[in-house]
Amino acid sequence: MLIIGERLSVVSRKVREAILKKDKKPIHEIATEQWKAGAHMIEANIGPAEDDGEGVMEWMVTTIQEVVPLPVSLDTTNSKAMEAGLKVHNNQWGKPLINSTSLDPERFVMFELSAKYSVPIIALTVGKSGLPRDAEERVEIAVQLIEKAVEFGVSLEDVYLDPLVLQISTSQEQAKEVLRAIKLFQQLNDPPMKTIVGLSNISNGCPKHLRPILNKYFFALLMYEGLNAAIANPAEIIEVVKTISIINGKTLYAHSYLEI
Amino acid sequence: MLIIGERLSVVSRKVREAILKKDKKPIHEIATEQWKAGAHMIEANIGPAEDDGEGVMEWMVTTIQEVVPLPVSLDTTNSKAMEAGLKVHNNQWGKPLINSTSLDPERFVMFELSAKYSVPIIALTVGKSGLPRDAEERVEIAVQLIEKAVEFGVSLEDVYLDPLVLQISTSQEQAKEVLRAIKLFQQLNDPPMKTIVGLSNISNGCPKHLRPILNKYFFALLMYEGLNAAIANPAEIIEVVKTISIINGKTLYAHSYLEI
Repeated sequence: MLIIGERLSVVSRKVREAILKKDKKPIHEIATEQWKAGAHMIEANIGPAEDDGEGVMEWMVTTIQEVVPLPVSLDTTNSKAMEAGLKVHNNQWGKPLINSTSLDPERFVMFELSAKYSVPIIALTVGKSGLPRDAEERVEIAVQLIEKAVEFGVSLEDVYLDPLVLQISTSQEQAKEVLRAIKLFQQLNDPPMKTIVGLSNISNGCPKHLRPILNKYFFALLMYEGLNAAIANPAEIIEVVKTISIINGKTLYAHSYLEI
Repeated sequence: MLIIGERLSVVSRKVREAILKKDKKPIHEIATEQWKAGAHMIEANIGPAEDDGEGVMEWMVTTIQEVVPLPVSLDTTNSKAMEAGLKVHNNQWGKPLINSTSLDPERFVMFELSAKYSVPIIALTVGKSGLPRDAEERVEIAVQLIEKAVEFGVSLEDVYLDPLVLQISTSQEQAKEVLRAIKLFQQLNDPPMKTIVGLSNISNGCPKHLRPILNKYFFALLMYEGLNAAIANPAEIIEVVKTISIINGKTLYAHSYLEI
């Protein structure tokens, strides 16, 4: 299970302010906390980044990698900012991840960058007509995304299909569909297609005390269905990752398994 | 999900002593705590009960039902004690449950009691040659148990198949097999066969701080696979029951769903 620390995002006011002031301290702290909590990669979500996107992404990637020996997941819809991030990324700690492409033709450039730099990419199963209604529609879109990946010369082993987790408070019936999609996506290729989610979307809009509970149990089911990667709060899910790995027989039981 | 409070068991020293001294107070307290924590039924495990089994079971059932308006799961290998419990059980709160029968011919008398009193029964998938090795062996035994139930005139809707949860610390590979068995059991009849587990067996022998963690996540997966009932600590699993019901779409999401 690849855990990508979600907390460096422009959705957070603290992060937005740090970016504006080019204040490295909060970025260093949040990156380090997530690394110590078990993240294998750090998400850098700078949003559309219309104003100096290249500079912002370069600064985020180098600032993160100054303190943690991890690769970075580059999250922006700005393709110039994406390429700037790919160029400065220190691949000594592993390859970066492009977050993300979809069936929106404006985002096909992300496939080009994935092929050009030979790095993995997240492909969101969002169609031209908006949010997918069920698992089957997600699969239909995934098939088209796979065709596009092949067309752009992206290795299918570099594609992470993302079924798009929706918030349970307003789209309750979608939770089951996402779980089914994770199972079905894997059957689209051999070796199985990789899958990823943005986990905390499930509990968006829920009361604060419910959020970790919903995140954890939904994550347990996703992992049971074969999920490969999650953008999540590592401190919240590391217990689940370790416990489901024991139940699934992926790691050997030891009384100290939570501490290892 | 039928939650059967597990805590009134001779495995507990407190309960053993209360039975010996005919001290109702601890029985009342534990039964009430479990009822308030969300149990739908109270397990009364008196063990083999070779010494005055009938008296002990009668005392347990009446003592429990004096304070909680719930049915009782009668757990003993002593068929006379079982029948004594069935006779004194107050069916106003629902039918009791016979815990349990298996392919051991000495326990076929439990099927007779199930048919005679028209009450549900737990059928453990334990064969003549000891513990089942995998899901398939559990299914083979389940098929034989179903045949026996029919032979004794027990309605299949009254049979709860129990795949026998083993402790993960020594039988790690069995956790997956139990999950698969829960799925496969349901396919043995239409309407699907009901399933039950003794949940906390999974974490037997594990350090104390790990037990609720293993119990909760294993339970989440069992419930996802369609489990109908669990003998468990209700305080430990009620959060899981409610959260998985939301994710599965069995109850409607509300911000207050944990409190309802």
